Amino acid sequence: MSAPSLDRVSAASEALDRLIATVPGFPEPGILFRDLTPVLADPDALRAVASELAASAHGPYDAIAGVEARGFALAAAAAAVSGTGLVLIRKAGKLPRAVYRREYALEYGTAALELHRDELPRGSRVLLVDDVLATGGTLEAALGLLADAGLQVAGVSVALELAALGGRARLARDDVRAIAVV
Amino acid sequence: MSAPSLDRVSAASEALDRLIATVPGFPEPGILFRDLTPVLADPDALRAVASELAASAHGPYDAIAGVEARGFALAAAAAAVSGTGLVLIRKAGKLPRAVYRREYALEYGTAALELHRDELPRGSRVLLVDDVLATGGTLEAALGLLADAGLQVAGVSVALELAALGGRARLARDDVRAIAVV
Repeated sequence: MSAPSLDRVSAASEALDRLIATVPGFPEPGILFRDLTPVLADPDALRAVASELAASAHGPYDAIAGVEARGFALAAAAAAVSGTGLVLIRKAGKLPRAVYRREYALEYGTAALELHRDELPRGSRVLLVDDVLATGGTLEAALGLLADAGLQVAGVSVALELAALGGRARLARDDVRAIAVV
Repeated sequence: MSAPSLDRVSAASEALDRLIATVPGFPEPGILFRDLTPVLADPDALRAVASELAASAHGPYDAIAGVEARGFALAAAAAAVSGTGLVLIRKAGKLPRAVYRREYALEYGTAALELHRDELPRGSRVLLVDDVLATGGTLEAALGLLADAGLQVAGVSVALELAALGGRARLARDDVRAIAVV
C-alpha cells in the first residue's frame, strides 16, 4: 500500500460529501439514512473511495473482508484496487462450508454473521472495510469472526462514520479510520 | 475495454477451475453448490476473473450492475478494474429512494428485486455481472429493471454457468458470456 496522499484523501472525502444522499424517514420514521449508492455509481468517486479505503491499513495485508450485503461493494472494489483477496462475512446460513458464527444484537432480537473457517491461512493479515460505521455492532461481530479464524486485523476502514452513534468507542481500537464523518 | 486476450481468458478460466469449491447437499440435500469464495480470496484469481468479466461487454459501458448479495462482490471488483461505476440491484425494501421493482419466482412463492429510478441517466450503458448463471430468474428480473430505468444493456457476464439449469435459454440474448461452464 502506498503512503497516504493528501490529494487522494481529499478526492475521496470530497466525493463522499458531494454524492452521499441523505434520505429522511428510511427505513423508519425518525431515521436519517445515508445512501452511498450515488458514490458507487460515479466512476471517479468509486475509484477514489476504494483507493483510500485500501490505503488506510496499518501495514501490508493479504485480503480485505467485507460484511453482507452493502459492505461487499466497497470491500470488493478496494480489494481489486489493492491487488489483494476478498473475504465475505455473511449472514447466517449463506456460507456452504464450516463456519465460525457470531451473534449480535439488533433493536429487537439478534442476528448472526458467519465466516468460513478455512477462508485464509491462520495468521493472514486482513483489512476490514465497510461503508458506514454506525453503532458498530456488525463490525464488532466481524472482528470477532476474524479473531476466531486466527487472522490478524490490519485495520478497520469505513467510508462514513456516524459519530453520534458511538461505534468508534464500542470498537475500542486505535486503527479505525473513516474517510468522512457526520 | 481492451479486446479479449487469450492469456487473460485462460488465466480467469484456470482460476475458476482450480478454486471453485463444490459442496454437496447445500443449501439442501441433492444440491451440488458451487462456492466461489475461494476465488474471491485469492488475489490473482480475483483480479483475473474481475478483469475478464469487465472485458466481456459488447462495446463501452458506463457502469456495471450487480445483484444482491453475492453478485455485489464480482460486480464491484469488475467496476474497479474497468474504471466504471457500480449499480446495486437490491432485494425488496433495501434501497431508500424511489425504485423500480420486479418480482421473480422462487421454488415456493416469489421474491422481488429493486433498482433506484435515478441511479444513472436514461440511455446509460450497463454491463450486468453475476457470479453464477443458474436458472436465470434473478438475472431476468435484473434485466427487466435495467429496461425499466431506460438503461442500455452492454452484455451479461457471469463467472460460472450451470448449463443444465437452462438459464441461458431463459435469458434469450446473444450477449451472455460465461468464463466457465459446468
